[in-house]
Amino acid sequence: MPSYKAPVRDLQFVIHELLSLTGQTELTGFDEVTPDLVDAILAEGAKLTEEVLHPLNLPGDEEGCHWDNGNVITPKGFKDAYKLYKDGGWQGMTSNPDHGGQGMPQTLGLAISEMMIAANWGFAMYPGLTKGATEALEVHASDDIKNKYLPNMVSGEWSGTMNLTEPQCGTDLGLIRTKAVPQSDGSYKLTGTKIFISAGEHDLTDNIIHLVLARLPDAPEGIKGISLFVVPKMLVNDDGSLGGRNGVQCARIEEKMGIHSNATCVLNYDDAQGWLIGEANKGMRAMFTMMNEARLGVALQGLAIAEVAYQNAAAYAKDRIQGRALTGPQDTAKPADPIIVHPDVRRMLMTIRAFNEGTRALALWTGLQADITRRHPDAAARQTALDMLSLMTPVAKSYLTDKGFEATNLALQCLGGHGYIREWGMEQFVRDARIAMIYEGTNGVQAMDLIGRKLPADGGRSVRAYFALVQDFITAEKDTAEMTEFTAPLGKSLQQLQQATMWLMQHGMKNPDNAGAGAHDYLNLMALVTLGWLWARMAKTAQAQLAAGTSETEFYTNKLQTARFYFARVLPETATHLARVESGADPVMALAADAF
Amino acid sequence: MPSYKAPVRDLQFVIHELLSLTGQTELTGFDEVTPDLVDAILAEGAKLTEEVLHPLNLPGDEEGCHWDNGNVITPKGFKDAYKLYKDGGWQGMTSNPDHGGQGMPQTLGLAISEMMIAANWGFAMYPGLTKGATEALEVHASDDIKNKYLPNMVSGEWSGTMNLTEPQCGTDLGLIRTKAVPQSDGSYKLTGTKIFISAGEHDLTDNIIHLVLARLPDAPEGIKGISLFVVPKMLVNDDGSLGGRNGVQCARIEEKMGIHSNATCVLNYDDAQGWLIGEANKGMRAMFTMMNEARLGVALQGLAIAEVAYQNAAAYAKDRIQGRALTGPQDTAKPADPIIVHPDVRRMLMTIRAFNEGTRALALWTGLQADITRRHPDAAARQTALDMLSLMTPVAKSYLTDKGFEATNLALQCLGGHGYIREWGMEQFVRDARIAMIYEGTNGVQAMDLIGRKLPADGGRSVRAYFALVQDFITAEKDTAEMTEFTAPLGKSLQQLQQATMWLMQHGMKNPDNAGAGAHDYLNLMALVTLGWLWARMAKTAQAQLAAGTSETEFYTNKLQTARFYFARVLPETATHLARVESGADPVMALAADAF
Repeated sequence: MPSYKAPVRDLQFVIHELLSLTGQTELTGFDEVTPDLVDAILAEGAKLTEEVLHPLNLPGDEEGCHWDNGNVITPKGFKDAYKLYKDGGWQGMTSNPDHGGQGMPQTLGLAISEMMIAANWGFAMYPGLTKGATEALEVHASDDIKNKYLPNMVSGEWSGTMNLTEPQCGTDLGLIRTKAVPQSDGSYKLTGTKIFISAGEHDLTDNIIHLVLARLPDAPEGIKGISLFVVPKMLVNDDGSLGGRNGVQCARIEEKMGIHSNATCVLNYDDAQGWLIGEANKGMRAMFTMMNEARLGVALQGLAIAEVAYQNAAAYAKDRIQGRALTGPQDTAKPADPIIVHPDVRRMLMTIRAFNEGTRALALWTGLQADITRRHPDAAARQTALDMLSLMTPVAKSYLTDKGFEATNLALQCLGGHGYIREWGMEQFVRDARIAMIYEGTNGVQAMDLIGRKLPADGGRSVRAYFALVQDFITAEKDTAEMTEFTAPLGKSLQQLQQATMWLMQHGMKNPDNAGAGAHDYLNLMALVTLGWLWARMAKTAQAQLAAGTSETEFYTNKLQTARFYFARVLPETATHLARVESGADPVMALAADAF
Repeated sequence: MPSYKAPVRDLQFVIHELLSLTGQTELTGFDEVTPDLVDAILAEGAKLTEEVLHPLNLPGDEEGCHWDNGNVITPKGFKDAYKLYKDGGWQGMTSNPDHGGQGMPQTLGLAISEMMIAANWGFAMYPGLTKGATEALEVHASDDIKNKYLPNMVSGEWSGTMNLTEPQCGTDLGLIRTKAVPQSDGSYKLTGTKIFISAGEHDLTDNIIHLVLARLPDAPEGIKGISLFVVPKMLVNDDGSLGGRNGVQCARIEEKMGIHSNATCVLNYDDAQGWLIGEANKGMRAMFTMMNEARLGVALQGLAIAEVAYQNAAAYAKDRIQGRALTGPQDTAKPADPIIVHPDVRRMLMTIRAFNEGTRALALWTGLQADITRRHPDAAARQTALDMLSLMTPVAKSYLTDKGFEATNLALQCLGGHGYIREWGMEQFVRDARIAMIYEGTNGVQAMDLIGRKLPADGGRSVRAYFALVQDFITAEKDTAEMTEFTAPLGKSLQQLQQATMWLMQHGMKNPDNAGAGAHDYLNLMALVTLGWLWARMAKTAQAQLAAGTSETEFYTNKLQTARFYFARVLPETATHLARVESGADPVMALAADAF
């Protein structure tokens, strides 16, 4: 059985030392967020995830969900665990106090989410989807609807889902066919089939609040004719009590590669009663509120699964003896050395470690941008943070899930044959990790979002601000000799990114396929530069602590060494990405479609 | 349900046009191998694999193997399919005619193996293991033992296995504990537990011939005290009839990530009767005969699974409509274009295609080296071929399985959410593909084999010959203007490989961890150069055909374009690998073991 220990110290490092979260007292409500409170929440989160959620992870995968005549039963133990989660008040931690939330920072919410996903991905998806639906209602719904649904969603009494995909329609939501027919009472009757609905039906809550994209009878064709509706599984009476069953049924749960403990449902809507959220035909806007939130959550999944996989790979590598160190036997009392002595095992572990610590900084930094976006008193500061958040959302979603999957596979590899056997749990991590590259917009869609929407938006304001952010750091450190080993390669990779940006601007105009063919590599180049910037900042923080005579010498020295690994072994990939971007569309698009 | 079509035309291109296999009449027995015969065998192989084996692949994964009190039942349909395979004479295709084989080229055997694995990996492993065991007996066993076992193994009447791993012992075979006690009749009694034994027990054949590593009572410690034994499941009488059951039992089959239709067994040996193969305490040598053969077979698995995954991803991408081409709608009669219009989908498909066609050339080229090694009349030619084969075996095993897994994941990605659902079959390909990076020596072990054994062997003779091979091609083409686009980048990457080789020689002496830390990247660098050389050769072949006015314009144009994709998009990775090699051991080894 695998084990999990929440990386509390490293989360503290990022939250307190790198981001100075609790020092940002200009943010509304942050004066109540003290370091002690943050630490207490992290400690409680660690307890819940290590002791309650993680032990259910492997059995939950083995058992999976059961479909029984439209009802779905979650794996053994999930109901009790959910009750603990709900009673602990975790669901509303970052939600609006107006509806019972605790108004804690999003940054802290992401830290707890990392723990939950790492401990039990399939379980974490149930409350995670509720959170996304909560946000969408919070921003777009009328007060009546908010008051009707939000308190019970914020408390975790009810859960939420998002319903986009249909059999003929995934990425291209303009193809949606589900119909919503207006009724005389102001509600709508929805009819259609939605597929791939995560947590679409289950036994954890008494009600499930579905947010559903559908088309009004007179809607324009395509994406401009999509509206968003709230459709509760159980109708809710005016006094808040549960009424009858609504016309939505779970026809089937999908058999899939992983995340077996989360029910992926086919939902049939048959004259189901729903209510419009926001304006008619403007559903995509509301859905994107949910989606952007969800995309950061998915990015976090890439990190979380790599963290738990790393921990188990490291434990195995320290325990399993096989062969001798190349530099001579290390443990002569035993017939072989632990495999962690082997450089190739170290290479794999260090690759995952550098990924985990770097992307943790990135994820929490995006969380801070989300907090600034919502709480900063200054409009310009809010706008800058929103720009950075919008730019980084596709980068984080794609890079963290692609490389998180790779990291999880490296972790499996450390166990050799045992990694392939179910009981060790590593192969579950790989199977679970695979979905994150696909859902909430495939990683190809993320790359197109980056180059097609985020780069050109507002005349390139975001990307210019981003370049300035990285360049300003390099400039500020230019006289710091001990930072040169980090800022020199960072500067070089930033130049490569700028060169790639110029290339896309020049050649993407002429032929948009030039942009499309380079999108994935451009995104990865930007991710590498961003992580380089964060690693350089972390190295600086560590150097300062070491210079000041910290008692945690080992922690900061390891941080510095891991930074060095990143610059020596990971950042050099930028050259390949630049070469690929600059090779343009021709090699990619040369063949006729029927040649494939 | 996925489908499979054997890539006969591309196999013919490599066999006939690139390698001129049937033109190598100086090789013993090759005068009988006519182009017509090769084509007929390829056509028959395609029929068997497309029509018989592939339809059993997905159901075989779903059903898996059943353990019942020591017996193992293979999935429905496997017995009938095996009978067809056996009756078709496929098992002995490349085996020695002395024992009933047909003496066909190894190169052709690899082509058929590719089809079998692509169509049904789990099934293909049963006869694949027999083949490995057959080779080991052929080379190392006494005539008595050969006569007793080989005819029935070559005919497919009986199957074979290799028994290395024990619970405490995987890579480090010096830790083997299974005991072999000599008996007065010249046989031995074996006792111990072997794990991860593929095809260790099943119902396809009446007997299973286990080749087992064990330790004699007076054996030296470690790797120098390992001997190889043949241990049949059913004892064989002197007249060749089956006798009683031997003392080997299948205690359990493992639950694992993939290859569910192949039984991975725990075998308990309890005074099982066995016979020594080759010399006492020299078992590793015999096992390596089997292992090298098996490693090329595993390399092929990486290609085969990527090929079937590619075919299904391409079919989906041409069929599924979603969104519009960036350059404007392509099919205005439909509400959206097929997703193959999107450059990022093309990027994924072209990446897999370039991998498949390039590594097919590599795999069959190694097959030709194996044929030359066995059949060339000139000892020097045999030695050179053996040098190339030895050098390329770890490179092919590691690179083809690492990148084959990546390619299979790219293929899954083309299907979006459907790729994650079982019924589409893509996720099975990914789960199956994952094992190849581990078994027959993890890919980390392959990298150490390359830099620790193969590079320094005979004063670096192999690698020097390899450099000359690539350089001679570049030199020969230096005045061919239309080849410059290929030879220029190939020359650059060859220089990078030579630079990395120099670096390893200089710094590996000083600290062997420098070599170990760079081994994986060095191996990948060599693989990329090798594929570059083969792609350049294929481009030249295609150019010649086009210049000669071939009727297959499309085939050769596509080949040329895919070559261009390789040079534009894949080969540039060499720069990163070189940078990693030259960064040495420090970033990798800096942390204390207990920091992980």
